[in-house]
Amino acid sequence: MNIETPVTAATEDLMANAIRALAMDAVQAANSGHPGAPMGLADVATVLFNRFIRVDPADHRWPDRDRFVMSAGHGSMLVYAINHLLGYDDMDIQQLKRFRQLGARTAGHPEYGHAKGIETTTGPLGQGLTNGVGMALAERMHNARFGDDLVDHWTYVLAGDGCLMEGISHEAIDFAGHMGLGRLIVLWDDNSITIDGSTEISTSTDQPTRFAAAGWHVQSVDGHDKEAIAAAIEAARQDARPSLIACKTIIGFGAPNKQGTAATHGAPLGEDEIAATRDALGWTFAPFQVPEAVRASWCAIARRGAGARAEWQARMNGSDHAEAFRQSLGRPDAKALGAAIGNYKHKLAMDGPKVATRKASEMVLEIVNGTLPNTVGGSADLTGSNNTRTSRMASVKPGDFAGDYIHYGVREHAMAAIMNGISLHGGFVPYGGTFLVFADYARPAIRLSALMERPVIYVLTHDSIGLGEDGPTHQPVETIASLRAMPNLAVIRPADAVETAEAWEIAVTSERTPTALCLSRQGLPTLRRIHSDENLVARGAYLMRAPDTEREVTLVATGSEVALAMEAAEKLAEQGICTAVVSAPSLELFAAQPTEYRARVLGSAPRIAIEAGVWHGWGQILRHGDVFIGMDSFGASAPAEDLYRHFGITSDAIVTDALKLIGRT
Amino acid sequence: MNIETPVTAATEDLMANAIRALAMDAVQAANSGHPGAPMGLADVATVLFNRFIRVDPADHRWPDRDRFVMSAGHGSMLVYAINHLLGYDDMDIQQLKRFRQLGARTAGHPEYGHAKGIETTTGPLGQGLTNGVGMALAERMHNARFGDDLVDHWTYVLAGDGCLMEGISHEAIDFAGHMGLGRLIVLWDDNSITIDGSTEISTSTDQPTRFAAAGWHVQSVDGHDKEAIAAAIEAARQDARPSLIACKTIIGFGAPNKQGTAATHGAPLGEDEIAATRDALGWTFAPFQVPEAVRASWCAIARRGAGARAEWQARMNGSDHAEAFRQSLGRPDAKALGAAIGNYKHKLAMDGPKVATRKASEMVLEIVNGTLPNTVGGSADLTGSNNTRTSRMASVKPGDFAGDYIHYGVREHAMAAIMNGISLHGGFVPYGGTFLVFADYARPAIRLSALMERPVIYVLTHDSIGLGEDGPTHQPVETIASLRAMPNLAVIRPADAVETAEAWEIAVTSERTPTALCLSRQGLPTLRRIHSDENLVARGAYLMRAPDTEREVTLVATGSEVALAMEAAEKLAEQGICTAVVSAPSLELFAAQPTEYRARVLGSAPRIAIEAGVWHGWGQILRHGDVFIGMDSFGASAPAEDLYRHFGITSDAIVTDALKLIGRT
Repeated sequence: MNIETPVTAATEDLMANAIRALAMDAVQAANSGHPGAPMGLADVATVLFNRFIRVDPADHRWPDRDRFVMSAGHGSMLVYAINHLLGYDDMDIQQLKRFRQLGARTAGHPEYGHAKGIETTTGPLGQGLTNGVGMALAERMHNARFGDDLVDHWTYVLAGDGCLMEGISHEAIDFAGHMGLGRLIVLWDDNSITIDGSTEISTSTDQPTRFAAAGWHVQSVDGHDKEAIAAAIEAARQDARPSLIACKTIIGFGAPNKQGTAATHGAPLGEDEIAATRDALGWTFAPFQVPEAVRASWCAIARRGAGARAEWQARMNGSDHAEAFRQSLGRPDAKALGAAIGNYKHKLAMDGPKVATRKASEMVLEIVNGTLPNTVGGSADLTGSNNTRTSRMASVKPGDFAGDYIHYGVREHAMAAIMNGISLHGGFVPYGGTFLVFADYARPAIRLSALMERPVIYVLTHDSIGLGEDGPTHQPVETIASLRAMPNLAVIRPADAVETAEAWEIAVTSERTPTALCLSRQGLPTLRRIHSDENLVARGAYLMRAPDTEREVTLVATGSEVALAMEAAEKLAEQGICTAVVSAPSLELFAAQPTEYRARVLGSAPRIAIEAGVWHGWGQILRHGDVFIGMDSFGASAPAEDLYRHFGITSDAIVTDALKLIGRT
Repeated sequence: MNIETPVTAATEDLMANAIRALAMDAVQAANSGHPGAPMGLADVATVLFNRFIRVDPADHRWPDRDRFVMSAGHGSMLVYAINHLLGYDDMDIQQLKRFRQLGARTAGHPEYGHAKGIETTTGPLGQGLTNGVGMALAERMHNARFGDDLVDHWTYVLAGDGCLMEGISHEAIDFAGHMGLGRLIVLWDDNSITIDGSTEISTSTDQPTRFAAAGWHVQSVDGHDKEAIAAAIEAARQDARPSLIACKTIIGFGAPNKQGTAATHGAPLGEDEIAATRDALGWTFAPFQVPEAVRASWCAIARRGAGARAEWQARMNGSDHAEAFRQSLGRPDAKALGAAIGNYKHKLAMDGPKVATRKASEMVLEIVNGTLPNTVGGSADLTGSNNTRTSRMASVKPGDFAGDYIHYGVREHAMAAIMNGISLHGGFVPYGGTFLVFADYARPAIRLSALMERPVIYVLTHDSIGLGEDGPTHQPVETIASLRAMPNLAVIRPADAVETAEAWEIAVTSERTPTALCLSRQGLPTLRRIHSDENLVARGAYLMRAPDTEREVTLVATGSEVALAMEAAEKLAEQGICTAVVSAPSLELFAAQPTEYRARVLGSAPRIAIEAGVWHGWGQILRHGDVFIGMDSFGASAPAEDLYRHFGITSDAIVTDALKLIGRT
């Protein structure tokens, strides 16, 4: 669909030079930033927007807009310049003048949520590309449910050399090629420059061949030849495969003395070079000044987008699916879910199954997936171990996007970044599984879930030495602590099937916080045998065993160790010692409770915390003199029970420490 | 070099079946483990060892041995079976019978250091492959220094589908192809099976084309055709490029009802299937029984290796380079380094430069690299930002391995895993740089540095919101806490140039602990103006400003925040409040100090800890009622000073909190 916008070479030159001028001026004003990429990519971006992209700045949330991802996020001024020129009302020239200043929407790297028209947060390389894969996948999945009338858009990604060097790019490319994501078009800023200098210093991969090997449609063009760029994009759209267009560009294009060198990458050009660039480009306007004619050309793009949105709205108004479509984009039906989980919790309290929490997770997922139409599951090749697939799920397959279960392959990092992309696209609530210890492989993308406030759900099983024989490479010891340290990530480690159900309710209904569910491999008894309507996990911690008289010691534990604490409490009770047991599935949620509640739960008696991990992060629970029973080294390979004994995490050890702590020895 | 060992097809069949039988018997005995890969790879491994590999079980540290890496670490029984059959004296049949049991050398995955002949710890997929790249690089670098007489060996890697799906594989392949690491031969266990089922579920990459695109020599063979395997390995050795040999194998080969399916991957075959396999293979021996003739065939390999080692030893004895060679494999000369750094500290205390600690790191690296002959630097494409390259360093280049500086490219994960490989190979002390926040990208490999006890050095610059305008994607907030949570990783965040020098001394002379150096982007004053012969950073924390009378408050800070604490202490002193300032560059090293020292440094007065990061991990310093001044959210994009003010990390804020804490408001 080559667009009907009147295109003349001279017009598009001016449109591109407006990007270049704004980029170099803003970086200069900030005395910080990256002019090279926006200047090098200005032609590509101009053609892409002028002739192809459909967005409506008056409705930046229009679901059927095309998605534009600047994966080389350091080139953020490209995005800000374009969004300013398109007329987004929150991106006036003052924002560009305040590039990289406190409170400005124009952060150093594009930050999702800071301004309209920023589809994802980029900067950590390779993430945007992989988010784009998730968006393109979500588009096809949404399309499979609602048809071409309502869902029919494209995902365009601009990626740099760094994006393609990062490992995650392999996972993204491999996955996209396999799935046949034909709605994804990646324009590679092939400028042969990285920070350290020429790409020849560090890579000699033939990128087009690499992409072709993964099943992509591949083209190469001169990234400053607008007709060639347009023809390539057009051809890419005609091909059923995902497309790579290698755009040979000159970094810092237009800066006569610096273009084509690393000097333009990450520093202001300087006043002299900026003046020389103005001369070279024939750009006679003052800093931050854009002539009306050029603005008009950019506004035509916005007008075209508004027209497309109006047509879409008309189709939407006439659609039988309108209500379901709207619901798919809204928050999950918390009321229906709450009722279903409430009933299920009743049953659990009666039945009292002894199951691993990963199995309990599968059990409650049957309820969740049965109640909510738009959960999308998956696993990084550990489906049977993560228990992420429920009975009525169907696999998403190449060319068949009606399913709701994604085989991410052995690609933890891409799984997380693809889930971010799906969540950003809208229409689905994604969850995906791997072993907890391999959260490390996905960590940069988990961080972006948290930073972008996307409620993605991580199902992290085999959550301690309790996984046994696979040994220390597979045993998380520090992983829970490292996840708890991350801002805006809810880490939940349920103790039994009831807590697992409550944890899922929290995760699925979360609006702005991703969740990491830490689940056991080994079977655990149901401890919550008395039904509570309240979601107690939402409190973060609560009394699992209330003291009947004045408590002498409080045991605080999470996950599989709560059962140990309960055993220990029994033994202590036999010795006449009043012991409270606090189950603390989420230290973050507990920290957010009122002080009074926290004090009531924890009491003032000496405390022992028990968790089969490191002590870091327990500082808000433990006071001077309190005791932590956990791990201070990596694990070992042996059956789980042997390991718990070996590392001294047993009910007997708890009893011994408790007696010592209260001076009974 | 096709070896002269007498080879008959029947002999090698028996040798391979011995591996298969031991693998299935051991997994059955453990009732846990992965028989599929060892059984599928038995032919490949037998040919590789019987006809090519040179190792001497009597001297497992022989520097010129070939390196064998089982990257698909779940197939650990392949390694244990081979090492048992080769006659390593610590791998008797009892070890195999105790597979995966507490205290056995035969852990679930191969653990470096647990037994001889295990070259690296594998299990987390893709790591072994990348370690192999590091080993093959180290071999050429060592060869460039000491010649063919002393260094002339091969690195062989067995990699599975999972290894090739992981993102790190791209970084490894790209780097190895670029560098032209012809001594690296990767045998891909192309069995078309992953845990979730057929690889067709999740990938359709043409792997040979992918490797060829990265500059590799590529072949495909039937992985059960021993002559074809041998011919391919021979051809691979003749080619100057790194080689991929795609070995089409049948997972669980020999198990008549299960072979070729995911059922053989990660579970015991079961008694019935094991009996059927014995029948199918014609293996008539009891569990764990290996006939003498088969043992003799394997022992011939060991004999050949012993002969090769004897020849090497003769060359070594006659070599002019013998002493330098030995030194390169030993620990760095701590005495010479100590003297050089001592002199340098004197000078620093006099000069008192105001420099960023990343710059201070470069300054002391001039001393380190000038004193020690075998440090090898590098950066993941941030050389000028990480300040990792000193004046006399030369780049390691394709075909020219005499240099000592490695351009790792935008590949943080591979950098870490390659450094692990270099360290494991021996001969060099590797350090490599990236931004601290991108330690997340490398985290799975950093974890393996720690688990394997390899003293790799991570140079992590731009260590807080102090990096300023690049914004929250680039600002570590939780990263230091997440690294501190990792067992056996020394995290050091120096406050000035003197502490940076001491930190480097600790890092370079560390024997069993990797180090993460967290360094500032922004300039910091030299606070240590009085020379101390003692390495105070080695204490973890010490009094930077001692109280002159009885202290009323203690400020504990790290890195760039120590200067803020010193400023605050001055202001408090002006109000007559006796304030101690503790610089705490390493909480782990401090935790290892005697209780008495810790008590003396910290005192009993109220404490305020200041660090521009999250509070997690400060629990060993802070007591109930003490105060933490730091970050509890992600950062923002703005000049550094604005951010410190915005987030309330200022000397004034410290003063205010101190006054409140001691009841002076």
